[in-house]
Amino acid sequence: MFDSGIGGLTVAKKIFELLPHENVIYFGDTARYPYGPRSKRIVRNFSFQNTDFLLLKRVKLVVVACNTASAVALDVLRKRYDIPMIGVVEPGARGALKATRNGRIGVIGTVGTINSGAYQKAILRLDPGLTVCASPCPLFASLVEEGYINKEATRLIAHEYLDPLLRKKVDTLVLGCTHYPLLKSVISKVMGKGTRLIDSAEETAREVKSFLEGSALLRNAKQRSFRKFYVSDVPDRFVQVGEKFLRAKIKEVKRVDIDSY
Amino acid sequence: MFDSGIGGLTVAKKIFELLPHENVIYFGDTARYPYGPRSKRIVRNFSFQNTDFLLLKRVKLVVVACNTASAVALDVLRKRYDIPMIGVVEPGARGALKATRNGRIGVIGTVGTINSGAYQKAILRLDPGLTVCASPCPLFASLVEEGYINKEATRLIAHEYLDPLLRKKVDTLVLGCTHYPLLKSVISKVMGKGTRLIDSAEETAREVKSFLEGSALLRNAKQRSFRKFYVSDVPDRFVQVGEKFLRAKIKEVKRVDIDSY
Repeated sequence: MFDSGIGGLTVAKKIFELLPHENVIYFGDTARYPYGPRSKRIVRNFSFQNTDFLLLKRVKLVVVACNTASAVALDVLRKRYDIPMIGVVEPGARGALKATRNGRIGVIGTVGTINSGAYQKAILRLDPGLTVCASPCPLFASLVEEGYINKEATRLIAHEYLDPLLRKKVDTLVLGCTHYPLLKSVISKVMGKGTRLIDSAEETAREVKSFLEGSALLRNAKQRSFRKFYVSDVPDRFVQVGEKFLRAKIKEVKRVDIDSY
Repeated sequence: MFDSGIGGLTVAKKIFELLPHENVIYFGDTARYPYGPRSKRIVRNFSFQNTDFLLLKRVKLVVVACNTASAVALDVLRKRYDIPMIGVVEPGARGALKATRNGRIGVIGTVGTINSGAYQKAILRLDPGLTVCASPCPLFASLVEEGYINKEATRLIAHEYLDPLLRKKVDTLVLGCTHYPLLKSVISKVMGKGTRLIDSAEETAREVKSFLEGSALLRNAKQRSFRKFYVSDVPDRFVQVGEKFLRAKIKEVKRVDIDSY
């Protein structure tokens, strides 16, 4: 699996829980994060390099754990590579469909994710009768990275981003960026108890499991499994901030020069 | 000149004003900004690639317009290349020395800039009797990028970052990141009228001028000059946000694949 940096660890966490016997190689592009404000062209280029690196590790499946990369690059990745690939957008869309009662779904994410329209299209493909309201929240990821979780400034910014969605009476809100689950508490307070928050991580882990089962690729539970982490910048900050996302110790982290792949 | 992205345009603006007849080539690394949270190792690698690109354009001087790159990479750049190089840290330090009355200087910047200790060392080299108080402001650059200039959230965050410097009774504050001049109004309000704000851009432009004069490299004023902009991501956002920094139209912007240099 790869991510623009640290956020994908929320997806890794769910995969570790659901598939404890799988070998997992995680690449976080910490030298070039965030992907959210970058163009489709650049996010695609970076995603190609990240995938090339994972293929050298002879993986059987690539999970695109980054919402922005899933939104803008998954289509071209699937065309370019033979290997199966699972992103976080489709599972998130299915989670929203299951959760909504009034058919009005909100989606929040980076500028790249929202402008791509990927969530909007994925939800409407499942049911064209639904209403989707999407809104970019460009400061949320920085606030999470800096530990601005329970701050008045964060609450004010959340109101600016979310009040328009509240007025549109969505009853379900997709957290379309892997950083946002860490802001669940402030987002819930702004949206009120009536709104269900959808975290793609869990849905994605379930999809990974059912895909591996369906294609007879599940690993034999008796074998010992490993979890390896690679990053493109030096690992210090990844370990320090990443352990908050993973809620576990991170061992075995190596730095790689990703632009040479 | 190069910068991690858009911020260096505040330096470009002052150079354009002071040296209207020089040809200027600006490279903004918009595919890999921000440099502030990255390691010394990565910022140095990126700075080498950026300089290699400028050298292909046969420049006579390289201005490192990014505070983080100046702070962590200028020493190794000067060792690696024969061409003269001017950063923004030393001019900023000289500006602070001239401005202070009580000998207590504050410095704010990215995590990379502050942790490097470059401003602290540059100021104490000028006068070891000064007191320097430095504080990273990691959210400021994101707030500027998103246009969060006159917002209550920004004021609250500014108080958290700056109140400790206020308590240390600094009478001069170096804005050690090219984005911060756009927050001058909120920073002034928090620090009070007694504190002078030092913007390295003007000092740097003056140093560029006196260097060119001193080495007989000033361009003949009768020749027509050009200003060219290169960026590593697609130019749209650079033009849109950059015009706020430059307070002028940006023409002639080209995209380059910087990791191939």
